[in-house]
Amino acid sequence: MTEFDLIARYFIRPAKRAALGVGDDCALINPAPGMQLAISSDMLVEGRHFFHDVSPYSLGHKALAVNLSDLAACGATPVAFTLALALPSIDEVWLQEFSRGLWALAGVHGCELIGGDTTQGPLNICITVFGEVPRGRALLRSGARVGDDIYVSGKLGDARLALEALQGKIELPADLLAAARQRLEQPTPRVALGMALRGIATSAIDISDGLAGDLGHILKASGVGARVDTEVTINLIAARAYINWATATFDTQKQLEMVFSGGDDYELAFTAPPTARGAVQDASSISQTHVTRIGVIESQPGLRMVDGHGQPVDMQFASFDHFAA
Amino acid sequence: MTEFDLIARYFIRPAKRAALGVGDDCALINPAPGMQLAISSDMLVEGRHFFHDVSPYSLGHKALAVNLSDLAACGATPVAFTLALALPSIDEVWLQEFSRGLWALAGVHGCELIGGDTTQGPLNICITVFGEVPRGRALLRSGARVGDDIYVSGKLGDARLALEALQGKIELPADLLAAARQRLEQPTPRVALGMALRGIATSAIDISDGLAGDLGHILKASGVGARVDTEVTINLIAARAYINWATATFDTQKQLEMVFSGGDDYELAFTAPPTARGAVQDASSISQTHVTRIGVIESQPGLRMVDGHGQPVDMQFASFDHFAA
Repeated sequence: MTEFDLIARYFIRPAKRAALGVGDDCALINPAPGMQLAISSDMLVEGRHFFHDVSPYSLGHKALAVNLSDLAACGATPVAFTLALALPSIDEVWLQEFSRGLWALAGVHGCELIGGDTTQGPLNICITVFGEVPRGRALLRSGARVGDDIYVSGKLGDARLALEALQGKIELPADLLAAARQRLEQPTPRVALGMALRGIATSAIDISDGLAGDLGHILKASGVGARVDTEVTINLIAARAYINWATATFDTQKQLEMVFSGGDDYELAFTAPPTARGAVQDASSISQTHVTRIGVIESQPGLRMVDGHGQPVDMQFASFDHFAA
Repeated sequence: MTEFDLIARYFIRPAKRAALGVGDDCALINPAPGMQLAISSDMLVEGRHFFHDVSPYSLGHKALAVNLSDLAACGATPVAFTLALALPSIDEVWLQEFSRGLWALAGVHGCELIGGDTTQGPLNICITVFGEVPRGRALLRSGARVGDDIYVSGKLGDARLALEALQGKIELPADLLAAARQRLEQPTPRVALGMALRGIATSAIDISDGLAGDLGHILKASGVGARVDTEVTINLIAARAYINWATATFDTQKQLEMVFSGGDDYELAFTAPPTARGAVQDASSISQTHVTRIGVIESQPGLRMVDGHGQPVDMQFASFDHFAA
């Protein structure tokens, strides 16, 4: 099978919205009048972003999901994506499953594959995604204001739980591992929520490197600080309801680590003024995405954690750094 | 140095044209009214697209150049690009030089770095580039018509000559190797020519995998065939003037191989009707890019090579395939 056969068999579908899809030197898209184009690019590397034995279906899903998650954080509507793929060799079973996972998620969001590249090399998946957002209405990191509520979507920490179980650091019952692993390997990008929050949220980010670090980006970009309730936040671990947490393995510190510096959650963290609480709930309902209010924006810089009694919880959380040891 | 420091130090410059550059979940660009957005993505892998010991300055140049070359082939004006970079480790000298090469070429074309990704992994460079072209005026592969002239820009085959010398397959005098190596490692994307050919060329492609294969894409997409003069084409090897070709190493077959299946030329191949010869010359002058007429489009499918006397030259040329042994 040649490079061109590979592309034709697994990665070409007729362009529906794009003016020109895969097969020429460039793809062409016609931006709609009054729209800005939102663009994001993520690269996934074996051993860093996924294990060698991850199912290729999941990998196809996740490679697109992490990019769609960036569009969601901007409130953009997915339009199209490019895929650049380095493969050690042509494995048709792998390609069949990888492309199936990719197309399935692309189909859900009406996001077209319009171009890309394939080459031989250590497994590497680089997707660049394009979305549309009405001019001036993109959700940015820089808009949080003192007094704003802080929200997160969905659940947090379960992807990290799965990661540690797969690394052999902790043990989980089989059904719990399966659920947590689904969160790690097939995250759900919160595209509908992001779009519903246009004009409501004052800032937003997707949580890929851990809540503490990613919320920190909002604080820094907005020139503000925050107070976050750790007890509310700990309860966002979906597995929490099923595990006996009163053990050394799953003590409070460990749980805080999972929700605040776990990473790979692909939920949205966002801010909105208290006057918009009803609108936030409406956006949550419309998008069928649960949201939880976890704290408040303050003028004092930095991120302060408090317990259920409002007492300071003194902890430092690292954000994930790809180049850290 | 953290991932964020790395991005801040080497890859952030203030956005001038983009609505939002590096530093949020997405970049934002405002497409100009009446313009289509042309998009292309290329991934460069060590050992496949460059040698381990290539200068990082050249690599920064080439990674962007091969993408700009795709825009050139569509007649698009460069606007912006994203960079996703997997690095084995943080080497500041390497990063300094790589980014210097990248910014130098980006500056020439007013093409802004608006986003991307960095991660730890085997060296891999994935750039996605964005250009603008007036709606409906992009140069495509599918527009060649019977009777059209076939042209190529610049020189051909010297990159392959350098590659073989660096691989130790042939020997070249030092000055000749330096010149050929420049062609291999720092190709000039023919952006100005591509833009000047809008409304004149009936089809275009950039020559990355070898003239025979890439011209073949035009023929297939346009449903036509071609006759090409091998003697004119062989003379496009810049080094030809300086080498004694009457040796076993550089016989005619070898020279044909270099120009027809050498690859890495990043010149444009394009077609235009004979009535447009003056306009093609004007486009060549305006863009200060030499072009050579090498053949003609015919109705009979396939690519036919003829010598200076119009006699058939019976040869098969492979196009570069990244997955071939």
